[in-house]
Amino acid sequence: MTNLEDYIRDIPDFPKPGIVFKDITPLLGDAKAFRASIDRLAEELSDVACDAVVGIESRGFLFGTALAMAKDVGFVPVRKPGKLPYDTVSREYSLEYGTDRVEMHSDAVKKGQSVIVVDDLIATGGTATAACELVEQLGATVSALGFVIALDFIPWRERLGDRDVRALLRYG
Amino acid sequence: MTNLEDYIRDIPDFPKPGIVFKDITPLLGDAKAFRASIDRLAEELSDVACDAVVGIESRGFLFGTALAMAKDVGFVPVRKPGKLPYDTVSREYSLEYGTDRVEMHSDAVKKGQSVIVVDDLIATGGTATAACELVEQLGATVSALGFVIALDFIPWRERLGDRDVRALLRYG
Repeated sequence: MTNLEDYIRDIPDFPKPGIVFKDITPLLGDAKAFRASIDRLAEELSDVACDAVVGIESRGFLFGTALAMAKDVGFVPVRKPGKLPYDTVSREYSLEYGTDRVEMHSDAVKKGQSVIVVDDLIATGGTATAACELVEQLGATVSALGFVIALDFIPWRERLGDRDVRALLRYG
Repeated sequence: MTNLEDYIRDIPDFPKPGIVFKDITPLLGDAKAFRASIDRLAEELSDVACDAVVGIESRGFLFGTALAMAKDVGFVPVRKPGKLPYDTVSREYSLEYGTDRVEMHSDAVKKGQSVIVVDDLIATGGTATAACELVEQLGATVSALGFVIALDFIPWRERLGDRDVRALLRYG
C-alpha cells in the first residue's frame, strides 16, 4: 500500500526562514501515489453530500478537479482577484501582515447545493474559510472540506469554526 | 454527443477592451462536459509518447492533472516565479509589454523522457514555448502540446516552431 507521506518532501526555510514547506510535487509526479491520494480523499469524503467540488487556486486545482471527476460532479474554481472573467462574489481575509482576497463566479454554485471545498493543505485556514464564506454567501452549504495535508500545530480551527474538516495526513 | 463549444462562454472586453475571453468555467462546472474534454484530449494525444504531463499554472493544472491520470503518468507543474520550493530551472519570455518568467523543478523531468505540455488555451504561445524550453533544457523531449482551445487568429506558430500542437476547439 502506498504511503503518501513518502511522497511529501520537506523544504526547510521556504517561503521564509523557520517555515518547513510541504512540497507535494513528488506526489504529483508519481502516477500511483497521485491516484492513491485521490482515491483516499474520495473515500474519506464518501459519506458527505456533494453536488460540486470547489478548489482553491492553484494547488487546490490539482486535487479538486481529480476529486470532482472521481465523484462525478462539476468543479468550481476559487481564484485570486481579477482572474475570473464573469460576475463574481469576493471575500477578503487577513494574513499575518495585511489582507488578501479570493473570488468565485456568482453563478458557480446554486442555492441549496452541498459542496466540498478542497485544497492541498490547511495551515492558517484563512483562504479555506473565505472560500466557505463565498459558497455560503450564494446560499449553498459546505458539507465538508478536504485536504491532503493538515498542519494541526497551526490553530486553523479558530477560523473554520465547527465546519467538517477531513485530511489524509496530519502533522503536529 | 457533448458539444464542448456549448460550454465555453465568450466574455467581451476581458481582461482588456477588444479581447474576447474564452471562459472555461461552464465546462469545468459540468461533470459530463469536463470528462468529455479529458477523454477527447487523451484520444487526440493517444499516438504520442508520454512519460509525464507538464501543466502550466494555473488553468493548465485543471486539464493537465486529469490528462495525466487518464494516461496513467505523473504530473509536473510549471509555475510562476517563486512558487516552487525546490531547485528550479527558469525561462523568461516576452509579453506585449515587458517580460514574464516560468519555472519548473530541475528534478521534475528526466533526460530522455517524452512529455506532453498542457494548457487550457493557446494564444500568443509565449508561456507554452517557455514551458517546452524548460523541458528541453533538462534533456527531455516535448512529444506534443495539448490544448482545449487554440486561437488560430493569433500567430502562436511563430513561437512554437514545428512542435506538434493538438487542440480540441479552434477559433479563427
